[in-house]
Amino acid sequence: MALDAADPLRGFRERFALPKDVLYLDGNSLGALPAHTPERLRRMIEEEWGQGLIRSWNEAGWYELPRGLGNRIAPLVGAAPDQVVVCDSTSVNLFKVLSAALRLNPGRSTVVSEVGSFPTDLYMTEGLAPARRLLIGRDAPTLEELLDGDTAVVLLSHVDYRTGRLQDMAAVTERVHAAGALMVWDLCHSVGALPIKLDACGADFAVGCGYKYLNGGPGAPAFLYAAERHHAAARQPLSGWFGHAEPFAMSPDYRPADGVGRFLTGTPPLLSFAGLEASLDIWAEADLALVRAKSLSLSSFFLRLTDELGLETVTPRSETERGSQISLRHESAYAVVQALIARGVIGDFREPDIMRFGFTPLYVSHADVFDAAEALRQVLDSGEWAQPRFAERGSVT
Amino acid sequence: MALDAADPLRGFRERFALPKDVLYLDGNSLGALPAHTPERLRRMIEEEWGQGLIRSWNEAGWYELPRGLGNRIAPLVGAAPDQVVVCDSTSVNLFKVLSAALRLNPGRSTVVSEVGSFPTDLYMTEGLAPARRLLIGRDAPTLEELLDGDTAVVLLSHVDYRTGRLQDMAAVTERVHAAGALMVWDLCHSVGALPIKLDACGADFAVGCGYKYLNGGPGAPAFLYAAERHHAAARQPLSGWFGHAEPFAMSPDYRPADGVGRFLTGTPPLLSFAGLEASLDIWAEADLALVRAKSLSLSSFFLRLTDELGLETVTPRSETERGSQISLRHESAYAVVQALIARGVIGDFREPDIMRFGFTPLYVSHADVFDAAEALRQVLDSGEWAQPRFAERGSVT
Repeated sequence: MALDAADPLRGFRERFALPKDVLYLDGNSLGALPAHTPERLRRMIEEEWGQGLIRSWNEAGWYELPRGLGNRIAPLVGAAPDQVVVCDSTSVNLFKVLSAALRLNPGRSTVVSEVGSFPTDLYMTEGLAPARRLLIGRDAPTLEELLDGDTAVVLLSHVDYRTGRLQDMAAVTERVHAAGALMVWDLCHSVGALPIKLDACGADFAVGCGYKYLNGGPGAPAFLYAAERHHAAARQPLSGWFGHAEPFAMSPDYRPADGVGRFLTGTPPLLSFAGLEASLDIWAEADLALVRAKSLSLSSFFLRLTDELGLETVTPRSETERGSQISLRHESAYAVVQALIARGVIGDFREPDIMRFGFTPLYVSHADVFDAAEALRQVLDSGEWAQPRFAERGSVT
Repeated sequence: MALDAADPLRGFRERFALPKDVLYLDGNSLGALPAHTPERLRRMIEEEWGQGLIRSWNEAGWYELPRGLGNRIAPLVGAAPDQVVVCDSTSVNLFKVLSAALRLNPGRSTVVSEVGSFPTDLYMTEGLAPARRLLIGRDAPTLEELLDGDTAVVLLSHVDYRTGRLQDMAAVTERVHAAGALMVWDLCHSVGALPIKLDACGADFAVGCGYKYLNGGPGAPAFLYAAERHHAAARQPLSGWFGHAEPFAMSPDYRPADGVGRFLTGTPPLLSFAGLEASLDIWAEADLALVRAKSLSLSSFFLRLTDELGLETVTPRSETERGSQISLRHESAYAVVQALIARGVIGDFREPDIMRFGFTPLYVSHADVFDAAEALRQVLDSGEWAQPRFAERGSVT
């Protein structure tokens, strides 16, 4: 395909160990395996752990990984150094940055989010501030109608996990600041899919996921960003020993580390860190402007092909409002997705009636997009999705 | 050595990939690599992740791992099934169980712990209840003097990380309950070292570590225990999507899972879970009564040998009050430990003047103990620890 022959990113595909019989459009849920990751894990397991044992905390640099990997993610999110750490899960990191943001805005008490947010964002807000949560789409139709003198923090997804809608980070952050609130961005569905400019947009805090577009492995550690201007005053309640100014002084009293390190909590799960470390080797070579251009080329191509199928498109058509996925609506979306998987085309289903197709520019080609759209056409035309076996729900899709 | 020839656990040593040039007495800080762990990780990485991709959440059983590994740890801590989950770090799990315990005892507000606790226990208590923390050894000399009508929760280490002192779990839990408080046990330095009877002792909650005696790998996921009688009423604020009753319903409102699953938070770091899973294969075959008997035989043997060196022994001499380590005091403890490491004998240092030697019955022999004590004697007799190179502190020891 000519579009692929001209693709400046085409060389990246061979850096991934993709299964031969599969066309994978779910890298927005779990990224593919980088080809060199098994060797990095083997080295950590057999050499650093097996041979180095406890000495590897110093000698293999384990102790530096939360800050070191944070600094390698920083350019992907438009952050100057020493504002990002890798740690815990997105959920736990949300708790930390929301707690910190609430304390930094003490005269106010409300957290505003969106009813369509990825659920863990909503649940963590509920766990932290059960009586002070307001939701766009439930309590009011728009952000503007909820922003008032009591709004302490606004938490929004940069790209919506279900619809694929992309927010204007600069404009929204400015509006939130103008209302006297702090802005927390969830980057789970944008990091690695498009350039992000946290510093330039004046974001206060952000969290993001290591296992989607970043390809860090299943359940890979998450990251968090805290703007440097907040470091000195920021406090968060998950004040574990890894966030202490002198963890090995073993003092009975907590004293937060200088800088973003105070957002660390417990001992990091290092095998999972090694997976993320390996995947960041690839990101060090990828130009995000090219990634974004190819992402839009892939999703626009898919839209052109699927427009002929008569399905409702949930994702915005405007490229400036689109992440790196296309979501289509079908009343039997679950069964259609299962029928596609049976044909080796992996997208996913989201309640209640959404089919999601994610386009990961480092390893998806225009030929893949064409084949996927063709498979979707055949599944719909043939009615094969109506077979009973495709309607049975597993626990996870 | 006759003691080793008669050791019923001697066959376990070959199940570990130990370095040839090292005598390892630090399994209480980071356990050794089980020989079959690299293959388990290779399978998860190359087959389940690389080939299975997103399908492995169902097909490889990833979704079940937090509860499944919890049920495999349950017999090691004396818990009937469905009361233990594997998740997050010890620090984060402490926050969850302390939060839950405080809410379950609403008329009271104080958390009692010990000034000598592993620091993260103290820091997490401070983060949760900064004004309501009382410490044995700082605010009063004994637990009895702190227990009063405002004591909501008592958090103690089953085995003290520094001194190696073992608490009487049954007696302490009974005393705490008699005072109307709930009991949380930190099992980090006892799980895998001796039999534990959480259910029989009536413990309310517990947390523990996967990377010490359990050999789950560096920073392996931690676990938590919640007694079944508390499940229905227990609430904890880290209410992420993995603890939801129906995570894939993607409801905007949190509804806790039935049972101990409500203590889960975010997506688990699965590569690290695979490390712990592999190590639990070995634990399924180990008789904890034999482990305890050998542990005491090793530590008593070491005590007999080091008694001749004239060092102060910090660990209790009574076997009923001893975990699986011996801690000795020396004014230049750091340098002595470094000189031992240079000789290939790995113990560790803890502030301010403690040398720790941990005895992990599955892979340490009496011959190792003899050689380690002999190396210590030589280091002290020769004065080689006084070389300047042994006094330089790394960031982690």
